[in-house]
Amino acid sequence: MTPLPIDQLFLMLAALLLAAGIFGAACGRLGIPPVIGELAAGLVLGPSLLGWVAPAPTLQALAEIGVVLLLFEVGMDADLTRLGRAGARSVAVALAGFFLPLALGFGCAYWLFGLSHTTSLLIGATLTATSIGITARVLDDVGRRQSDEGQVIIGAAVLDDILGVITLAVLQQYVDAGTVSAAGMGRIVLFVGLFMLLAPLAAKITASLIAAVDRRADSPGLLLILAVSLVLLFSTLAHALGAPVLLGGFAAGLALGPSFRVTLPARLRLPFRRGVAALLAPDADFSRRVETQMRPLIHLFAPVFFVLVGASVDLGSFDWRDPYLAGLTAVLLAAALAGKWAAGFVLRSPSAVRHAVGLAMVPRGEVGLIFIQLGLARGLADAAIGGVLLAVVALTTFLGPVLLKAFYRFHPAFKEAA
Amino acid sequence: MTPLPIDQLFLMLAALLLAAGIFGAACGRLGIPPVIGELAAGLVLGPSLLGWVAPAPTLQALAEIGVVLLLFEVGMDADLTRLGRAGARSVAVALAGFFLPLALGFGCAYWLFGLSHTTSLLIGATLTATSIGITARVLDDVGRRQSDEGQVIIGAAVLDDILGVITLAVLQQYVDAGTVSAAGMGRIVLFVGLFMLLAPLAAKITASLIAAVDRRADSPGLLLILAVSLVLLFSTLAHALGAPVLLGGFAAGLALGPSFRVTLPARLRLPFRRGVAALLAPDADFSRRVETQMRPLIHLFAPVFFVLVGASVDLGSFDWRDPYLAGLTAVLLAAALAGKWAAGFVLRSPSAVRHAVGLAMVPRGEVGLIFIQLGLARGLADAAIGGVLLAVVALTTFLGPVLLKAFYRFHPAFKEAA
Repeated sequence: MTPLPIDQLFLMLAALLLAAGIFGAACGRLGIPPVIGELAAGLVLGPSLLGWVAPAPTLQALAEIGVVLLLFEVGMDADLTRLGRAGARSVAVALAGFFLPLALGFGCAYWLFGLSHTTSLLIGATLTATSIGITARVLDDVGRRQSDEGQVIIGAAVLDDILGVITLAVLQQYVDAGTVSAAGMGRIVLFVGLFMLLAPLAAKITASLIAAVDRRADSPGLLLILAVSLVLLFSTLAHALGAPVLLGGFAAGLALGPSFRVTLPARLRLPFRRGVAALLAPDADFSRRVETQMRPLIHLFAPVFFVLVGASVDLGSFDWRDPYLAGLTAVLLAAALAGKWAAGFVLRSPSAVRHAVGLAMVPRGEVGLIFIQLGLARGLADAAIGGVLLAVVALTTFLGPVLLKAFYRFHPAFKEAA
Repeated sequence: MTPLPIDQLFLMLAALLLAAGIFGAACGRLGIPPVIGELAAGLVLGPSLLGWVAPAPTLQALAEIGVVLLLFEVGMDADLTRLGRAGARSVAVALAGFFLPLALGFGCAYWLFGLSHTTSLLIGATLTATSIGITARVLDDVGRRQSDEGQVIIGAAVLDDILGVITLAVLQQYVDAGTVSAAGMGRIVLFVGLFMLLAPLAAKITASLIAAVDRRADSPGLLLILAVSLVLLFSTLAHALGAPVLLGGFAAGLALGPSFRVTLPARLRLPFRRGVAALLAPDADFSRRVETQMRPLIHLFAPVFFVLVGASVDLGSFDWRDPYLAGLTAVLLAAALAGKWAAGFVLRSPSAVRHAVGLAMVPRGEVGLIFIQLGLARGLADAAIGGVLLAVVALTTFLGPVLLKAFYRFHPAFKEAA
């Protein structure tokens, strides 16, 4: 694909930002999460309607930067004490929200619709994803990201992302080699796990160096440049280790956040112990400054991602009257909704929280789209199945936030709290 | 050129930002304009030394966004009352700084070095450009952008940019058709002139609409999204009318700035006169908010541009011991320095101001590079001449700020003022 001339790129980007801003603000006024407006802007600008915005490589790169920065913000805002307390519950929700849709999706495709083994596997895998970007945004929109269930949801979505990536790697290996080796799978799990353990620590140390450099140099843009570099470096590192770039942004955000605290064990003997402890100490003022400078960037780039998700779907290319495809779409949509919704019920919490957690896990978004792209590229799905999956992912992405928002609005437990 | 995989792009961007931040801050500490550090970072990362950063389309697009946003800031900060007062002087400096280097460059190449007509024309044209981006940044670094001579310089640099673009269009026509029609040239001049007259007015009206939308919608990112869209739209418009995209950013910045004031003639009868007047009224609070939100973006993207300028030069590919090429480089460098420096002397000002204005016009930067690219693509210059021109443009870009900075530092007239 040849790069767009600069004026066309500028025009496309301007149209995309304008549409995102206007649709998002309009949704905001109507009480609908702005992210839905941005996805709708993508449907309008994309091949479904106007066909103005094509996924040019540069736009995709900007979108990718946007979603990584968004995950950075999610990481920064994640209250680690609470996330830790939510830990076991997040794991339970993530596992249930992974295996239920996988089983339901695979089962329906294989037994009800007679699709092949590998295609059914692709379909099941596509339904496992949770769009942490969209989920975090919706939680923001309804003001519940810092709530108790918000932390369970973020934790589960992050774990789901990790599980999804492992599934993707395994599926890829299965398609390439026709078989999956336990050693290969173990290596993938090990790499991703190591990354999530070590990256925040490494990022924290780097961040302390950044803070020290920034205190000494009197250069207005330096802090932002260094923080963005850190996010990009950790995203690259995540990718190099087989994890999604998103996790790099999340890990960097965790480490730069005000609640990231590493306590050296008292009995650990270290050279320069005091210096190391200083490097690891949280620095709330520095966190605040980073966040203030990052926010405009995130406001600008995150919508690019959501519009492009909408623009990657072509609703018009799809013959909705074909009963087989329409049936498959309806059944998979039901499986996608039910599988995630039910995952909330593994919690021993009030039913309001169970519903909220389940509904928050519904949107599939970017990770689902990656599965579809892989499936199409490797011949696991033909255009018709690809279209069905796109429709299902798009519909969960639209319906999830609407349902969650409506739930928060009308359920008495939250109505009173709000 | 195939687009880079996202992880490579992220890594390259991170290396680029890190190097720009560190080199820039280091220069800042040493009292050298940070922009020189960023150009040096480009030389280090580019093919001259490490070869890590290639001008990938996405990086170029980011750089282009950076320089357009920088021009937006220059436009916002331009004090129009002073720019108007500087008007005639800016025109004189721009014209002298255009024709002197053109004549000197063409003359030296044609008569002294026996180069062809068209190649000599390309060389002369390349020397006419003034890098408004670098000039504005250096003036910032020495704290003189708002000074009297700063306004003359910005005005002259903007006019030089316009003259440079007209020359580029004329040269292109000459190469394509073998001749230049007066009608064709008139059309180009007319378009660019019309754009610079009408664009700020149109941008002002759009900006007032943005301010009105922003007041009503309670959406935190909306203002920035709309402002960036406006900048991109006007850049596209500039391009469509045959002007450089940079001018679109400048025009949008002018219009959104706090000093942009359009007074309706008292005798003009207009429907909705009061509404129109309200749309045209300056809104200092809105200008301040736009600038506050834009600044982090500019800090992040402008360095991408300067690093890529540095990375587009390959000092290693050039045989500096060839006496013909070394001589040509030395002579053209002298012509490039002398031509712009002398342009300051058309002013009837104290000699300190004349020197400062002349020196500020020295850096060629981006527009010069565009000329070279055109020349190479159309066969007006071979690789050797292209290398010479690249070296001259790079050296003026490095030497201009150093000389200007040194001048401001050591000349008694400014020493006392500082």
